[in-house]
Amino acid sequence: MTETLVASQTKEAIIGFERPFCVIGERINPTGRKKLAAEMEAGDFSTVEADAIAQAAAGAHILDVNAGVTAVDPNETEPPLMRKTLDIVQAATDLPLCIDSSVPAALAAGLEVAKGRPLVNSVTGEEDRLEVILPLVAKYNVPVVAISNDETGISEDPDVRFEVAKKIVQRAADFGIKSHDIVVDPLVMPIGAMGTAGQQVFRLCRRLREELKVNTTCGASNISFGMPNRRVLTGHFLAMAASHGMTSAIMNPLHDEDMHAIFAANVLNGTDVSCRAWTKKFREAPKAAVEGVPLSEQDERRLARENRRRRRG
Amino acid sequence: MTETLVASQTKEAIIGFERPFCVIGERINPTGRKKLAAEMEAGDFSTVEADAIAQAAAGAHILDVNAGVTAVDPNETEPPLMRKTLDIVQAATDLPLCIDSSVPAALAAGLEVAKGRPLVNSVTGEEDRLEVILPLVAKYNVPVVAISNDETGISEDPDVRFEVAKKIVQRAADFGIKSHDIVVDPLVMPIGAMGTAGQQVFRLCRRLREELKVNTTCGASNISFGMPNRRVLTGHFLAMAASHGMTSAIMNPLHDEDMHAIFAANVLNGTDVSCRAWTKKFREAPKAAVEGVPLSEQDERRLARENRRRRRG
Repeated sequence: MTETLVASQTKEAIIGFERPFCVIGERINPTGRKKLAAEMEAGDFSTVEADAIAQAAAGAHILDVNAGVTAVDPNETEPPLMRKTLDIVQAATDLPLCIDSSVPAALAAGLEVAKGRPLVNSVTGEEDRLEVILPLVAKYNVPVVAISNDETGISEDPDVRFEVAKKIVQRAADFGIKSHDIVVDPLVMPIGAMGTAGQQVFRLCRRLREELKVNTTCGASNISFGMPNRRVLTGHFLAMAASHGMTSAIMNPLHDEDMHAIFAANVLNGTDVSCRAWTKKFREAPKAAVEGVPLSEQDERRLARENRRRRRG
Repeated sequence: MTETLVASQTKEAIIGFERPFCVIGERINPTGRKKLAAEMEAGDFSTVEADAIAQAAAGAHILDVNAGVTAVDPNETEPPLMRKTLDIVQAATDLPLCIDSSVPAALAAGLEVAKGRPLVNSVTGEEDRLEVILPLVAKYNVPVVAISNDETGISEDPDVRFEVAKKIVQRAADFGIKSHDIVVDPLVMPIGAMGTAGQQVFRLCRRLREELKVNTTCGASNISFGMPNRRVLTGHFLAMAASHGMTSAIMNPLHDEDMHAIFAANVLNGTDVSCRAWTKKFREAPKAAVEGVPLSEQDERRLARENRRRRRG
């Protein structure tokens, strides 16, 4: 029963085989959000702050924090911006954080200021990454996301990706990092470009859980890149992946489709004990209210009835 | 690559491992629909006809037809009513049908009038059922739904339910019925009453596919019985079950949640080749139109743009 502990100064989030699916909020990431990138570069963190608060309110368990505002000279610009962004987010919420960068110096800078036990995102199977990032992870005794690609790129063969993940786990062990502190990202391809992308992930989730006994995560919305009705497709992908053993995802907690999928997956995978979370969420929020439409009289009566019933115990 | 052929006089539906998930419309069933039962008893088949047409339009591949209007003397009343109901449905649509009854005489009556190759729903592992229904199935050379319970009831142990399914397949072989003509229903329990109900079905779907090599079906909405927000839960259950190998379900094609789940599952399981069905459904029907709201100007412009693009190829 593998468990990965991620923590802020005051709050824990556990990614685990027998735990409810762990929602890692993806919003604080200027990659592909030009307006946010411009704001952050100009020292305006109002959107970062608002996104932190909104994602926490929507039920995220961990917040991903990325400060990659520019491809120009990131080694210079990203470390101080990561520090600043983490300070802002830590002041805005008490959620555990995930320090997300492809720039090792930004990960190091983040680890200096992040309180508690942040998740480092990420290391790959590339030799230069392993040599730089694993010592950092070991030094701070934190968990790390391991992406299953290496120098040869991303293999289209899921069994090759499994072997890359296995290599990372073995190399991490050399640095004293336990496998329960490694969260493997099996890499999600766009289904529009590769028709087997879904089945690959499902198979990898099962193998990673049964053979390597590690937790898993992914960038969930990759699956629906370029497709119409992306949210519904991403939502179902999340529930299906969870049923094959995926234990967390970097996703958008502000999308109802994603969150409903997670709530349903927890019920159906038996990690929402006695369906308590589901019942609480949907008994208290009739459909109309969930969708932001004013309550009908019927909903109000139903809500009142539910509340009376609950008070009576 | 197991395939079960179901057919009307003019149309085929194939339930199969490498096929898109087969949607069996559940609506023509007076059990639990008092008004429909009263209408059918009074010889009014207008709702039956309307339900047949609506389900076909919504994308059902097969229509389930049940004529169980009363628990009183069903051996007398149900066979003629099954005949009549099948006549009505066969006149209203050209879809293949599923003759659904717990009364063997009603199944026999249905087989006399159903054209093509209907699916018989169902036989169980109970000795008296096997002895009466398997010869009927063999005589008409039709496929049959096998429900995995026997004289001892429904086991809570999925491995016992697997053994019951295996026994039915073996007994059917004695009558010359091939395993590809048996569609096993592993039995779906309400998740609110049994927290492991989802995981049981997922495990059974995998075993039934890998070990017995049979197609599978279920009464999908059972899973959400008694729960709030049933449709979203049932939809995610369908997609998750499909990803573990379930190949059909008796479900409500008029519920968008169910149908969107099936479309998503087909994309993610690789049975919607090149995502054609998904793209056609959602590119042609902007969200507002799907939900029955008139198109906005923006939607209309988008639709026109899409159509131009498609014409250009």
